[in-house]
Amino acid sequence: MAEEELAKRFGELVRRLRQAKGYSQEDFSFRVGLHQTYVSSVERGERNVTIGTANRIARALGTTLADLFVELERRPSGPDD
Amino acid sequence: MAEEELAKRFGELVRRLRQAKGYSQEDFSFRVGLHQTYVSSVERGERNVTIGTANRIARALGTTLADLFVELERRPSGPDD
Repeated sequence: MAEEELAKRFGELVRRLRQAKGYSQEDFSFRVGLHQTYVSSVERGERNVTIGTANRIARALGTTLADLFVELERRPSGPDD
Repeated sequence: MAEEELAKRFGELVRRLRQAKGYSQEDFSFRVGLHQTYVSSVERGERNVTIGTANRIARALGTTLADLFVELERRPSGPDD
């Protein structure tokens, strides 16, 4: 999977899990300790985040980095899920 | 898990899996398409790699990003494994 595709899927998954938790982007940015514009760009698939940032995002979503990547690799990408 | 601990565990795991595959660091760096000094610093736990780089490393080790992090989170860190 190319880096762009990985960033896109990661962003879609973060958005889907954030919304499933009922967190606004603003609320979620505060939980992760990242600026909202940054979180927004991650969700748009524009960021090749570090594993440290991905781990913080996973924790704020109440999951683990491993589970996040298992889900990411399991799901075909689809924005309208 | 703090970012430093994550980088340390990631590095230890990459080294262990690389050695299990019988790849020298030089050979592995070529497979991943990264400079050997960079791979060496990753293995020493000095790098907070991006998920794109982690994915390339996983592929070069013949595994997936998900399996790599499942293993990382499963194992207590221990350099003398």
